[in-house]
Amino acid sequence: MVVGKVANEKSFAKLFKQNSIKFLMPKKDLEFVKKVQKEITLLSNASALLGWDQQVYMPKKASQDRAEQATILDGILHKKITDDKFYKAVLSLSKSKLPNDDARTIEILKRDLGKARKLPNEFIEELSKTTSQAFDAWQEARERKDFKIFLPHLKKIVELKKKQAKYIGLAGHTYNSLLDSFEEGMTVEELKPKFEKLKIELIELIKKIENSEKYKTQKNIFENYTFSNDKQIIMSKEIAEKIGLKKDISRVDISTHPFTIRLGTKDVRITTNVRTDPLFSLLSTMHEAGHALYEIQMPEKFKYTALMDTPSLGIHESQSRFWENMVGRNKPFWKYYSKQFKSEFGLKEKEEEIFSSVNHIFPGKIRIESDEVHYCLHVILRFEIEIDLIAGKISVEELPKIWNNKMKELFGVTPKNDAEGVLQDVHWSGGSFGYFPTYALGTIYASQIYEQMKKEIPKIEEEIEKGNFEKMQKWLGEKIHSQGRKYLAEDLIKKVCGEGLNPEVYIKYLTKKFSEIYGF
Amino acid sequence: MVVGKVANEKSFAKLFKQNSIKFLMPKKDLEFVKKVQKEITLLSNASALLGWDQQVYMPKKASQDRAEQATILDGILHKKITDDKFYKAVLSLSKSKLPNDDARTIEILKRDLGKARKLPNEFIEELSKTTSQAFDAWQEARERKDFKIFLPHLKKIVELKKKQAKYIGLAGHTYNSLLDSFEEGMTVEELKPKFEKLKIELIELIKKIENSEKYKTQKNIFENYTFSNDKQIIMSKEIAEKIGLKKDISRVDISTHPFTIRLGTKDVRITTNVRTDPLFSLLSTMHEAGHALYEIQMPEKFKYTALMDTPSLGIHESQSRFWENMVGRNKPFWKYYSKQFKSEFGLKEKEEEIFSSVNHIFPGKIRIESDEVHYCLHVILRFEIEIDLIAGKISVEELPKIWNNKMKELFGVTPKNDAEGVLQDVHWSGGSFGYFPTYALGTIYASQIYEQMKKEIPKIEEEIEKGNFEKMQKWLGEKIHSQGRKYLAEDLIKKVCGEGLNPEVYIKYLTKKFSEIYGF
Repeated sequence: MVVGKVANEKSFAKLFKQNSIKFLMPKKDLEFVKKVQKEITLLSNASALLGWDQQVYMPKKASQDRAEQATILDGILHKKITDDKFYKAVLSLSKSKLPNDDARTIEILKRDLGKARKLPNEFIEELSKTTSQAFDAWQEARERKDFKIFLPHLKKIVELKKKQAKYIGLAGHTYNSLLDSFEEGMTVEELKPKFEKLKIELIELIKKIENSEKYKTQKNIFENYTFSNDKQIIMSKEIAEKIGLKKDISRVDISTHPFTIRLGTKDVRITTNVRTDPLFSLLSTMHEAGHALYEIQMPEKFKYTALMDTPSLGIHESQSRFWENMVGRNKPFWKYYSKQFKSEFGLKEKEEEIFSSVNHIFPGKIRIESDEVHYCLHVILRFEIEIDLIAGKISVEELPKIWNNKMKELFGVTPKNDAEGVLQDVHWSGGSFGYFPTYALGTIYASQIYEQMKKEIPKIEEEIEKGNFEKMQKWLGEKIHSQGRKYLAEDLIKKVCGEGLNPEVYIKYLTKKFSEIYGF
Repeated sequence: MVVGKVANEKSFAKLFKQNSIKFLMPKKDLEFVKKVQKEITLLSNASALLGWDQQVYMPKKASQDRAEQATILDGILHKKITDDKFYKAVLSLSKSKLPNDDARTIEILKRDLGKARKLPNEFIEELSKTTSQAFDAWQEARERKDFKIFLPHLKKIVELKKKQAKYIGLAGHTYNSLLDSFEEGMTVEELKPKFEKLKIELIELIKKIENSEKYKTQKNIFENYTFSNDKQIIMSKEIAEKIGLKKDISRVDISTHPFTIRLGTKDVRITTNVRTDPLFSLLSTMHEAGHALYEIQMPEKFKYTALMDTPSLGIHESQSRFWENMVGRNKPFWKYYSKQFKSEFGLKEKEEEIFSSVNHIFPGKIRIESDEVHYCLHVILRFEIEIDLIAGKISVEELPKIWNNKMKELFGVTPKNDAEGVLQDVHWSGGSFGYFPTYALGTIYASQIYEQMKKEIPKIEEEIEKGNFEKMQKWLGEKIHSQGRKYLAEDLIKKVCGEGLNPEVYIKYLTKKFSEIYGF
């Protein structure tokens, strides 16, 4: 959703002084655009709080009321976003000569508003209400391991999403119009062949791992221990703070599915949880903390402007995957962290064995519990299903069967029930079709960013070994976070890494890491 | 603020059938009024969540952003409340013949809207922003025990409140226009002499207590023990649930100052905290749970109507004071609760001694930690200051001095610093002038209600002794909660107790209870 965007008053004032007659109209328009965008941001913050509370602290029976509250607030927001006067001011400014940041702000607004204005108010209200109720149905369905409870809600959502794609009407595959909301400029035509190739290479890599001697004898050492839930949460909170989530601007709470949310520039919150896997809480917290650090390190000067944003969710995800994988699953990190981890939970094994177990490869059924190698296969499975659903090639009723077939084909395993199959993710209940691919994109970007970082920060692995994250925080802040939404994802990655999206860097990274661990 | 009010569709539909031509216009108006009032309720719920979060979980540095979020949302709300079309529909309906509940709804709306419409949008926005910032200043001032930090904010608020009183313009004392927002129909002219008399009688009663033998030798037995904060909170949560706050529709969290808030008909939350006094958490939780039970037991059929409300905050307070005093400080309750209390905290004293200590009379400086006898004196002190402030007879700068002088006069003690003096309450930082008197009114009403309940529920004290609260819950639900805002406070109390506000019942109740405890 378009939030927090407004032209940069300061730089405009400077320009205005240079040419006071010519810019009389733009100044008035700019002030108006600024005012509206501030209102939109603030109301979005309020709406975000309704969502945060629903997932974290709201009493169960309040969900119907909460759905109605969200519906009305989102309706007001949509009305503001699609207001004619606002759009006209943006269009008028788009024809004026403005300083760089302002010009980019107006360019983004013109594009985003143009898209948003295609969706009628009633449609937004229906979508908001439907997804709010669907979220509760999904929770119940997952709890009871029964897809049928979620089915009618998901059917309604898929129909609404097809309708939305029609309203947006981008070129190419119908799905492009949904994907674009999360990954600006990306298309099925570009992504499908890249994912197809990645899929083949990942399956090849997995075969090599599975054929290794080490794989055949590997054991989960964590099974022998008990990991106190409270301790896991406390340690996760400590790591979050170390990554940069200071308590006066952030929080860590518990929710079913971990997430990050910005409720203000000085209020960025994450959630975590515990699962059977004792690493889940730690690594998912590092993941969400990576998202949150991005939000926290965006510059104050972009506040209430379209630049206070990410180029794409893929870029956002690159920040979370960076901290989860390149730090949290990296050897130097476990040189630093093993001691505390062992002593808190009473583990007897050596650091080396713990590191191997952290990177234990296993064809699991749950995406968010996945190892690094299988992860993108989970995403590709969802991507393939989503494009077929939106194209009308498959029906919602068939989903559990299709899901399980694909799991068999890609992973060689079959979910025992829908809770560990088609019902495992929250995204569809929220209407987020087109979101999943950004997880794979982020994972690939993260590997490219890490390769570049290693070239630019001397002895980075030694820093991680000491638990010093400051240089990485600063580097990411300078190179990525401080850029906001000034560039498209592809251009930003080119600027930072010298080349655009390159899955080969990712495959190389994985092959090097896991050939060392599994010895092939 | 006017929230949650809309005409009752069902009863109207019935009437409409009986007379389909005559009511054609009212039906359209009624539907419109219903729609607007639903929107107002839902947006008020969202605004309430912003407030709840600010006091319970929000990171410290987010307060500036939160103030801006609250300001814009409250601005939208005020615009909806004061919308001409809405008011016209209400005025038009007020001339139609409607079924009882609908007629009362429209009568309330006409009155409340008439008042609300007198306040300009800009005034509401300024008040909202001012109080949001003042809340943070008050917190800091109290922490640093320095009134000067709060002074400029409070000055601004008092000026705004004088302005507000002028806008409202009720007859008599300027303060009446503020008091009426909390206690409809009540005036300085009526209250001042009653409080004056009550003050004299309370001081007389306190003298009797202080002259008793028992008072001279009384000791605080709780000083000899350590009361785990965690255990206090757990026990408070248990009591809240016993009073009727089921977890699927309610929550208990921790905040600086305990409060109750309704975020929806199935989402009523309270907060608690611990203080040096080990009874604070328990009794303040019972207090807030009493408020919450009222909200929970209002009938679903009143949802989104003006009837889903209390006649006055005095009546609301009667419910909280009932559970705090008539249950929580009552002998039968300690017959039931002493055993658990003693075992959880390892107390050695007898039940009788614990009950005496619960009702230990002491001229404390903090209102919310006050015993039953001193409590109304705290309120009267604030009432006297408020009316003089609003009348312009005293200045904000003089407040600490005036406060301390009055404390000396009424209690015979002087606060060590402003934190235990003029800075102790949150109310003024939120602009709530006229709120305090309702605490005393509620305290008096509670004693009247208890006397009546004893007549109507056989062996009520035995029920309390067994920890059975169901009969009381049901009785309060039937007599008070289910009535919503159908009657004015005075009329409701007459209906329930056979007579209106009568401070003599309260003085009698206190005299009987404390003459038994102190033996005079």
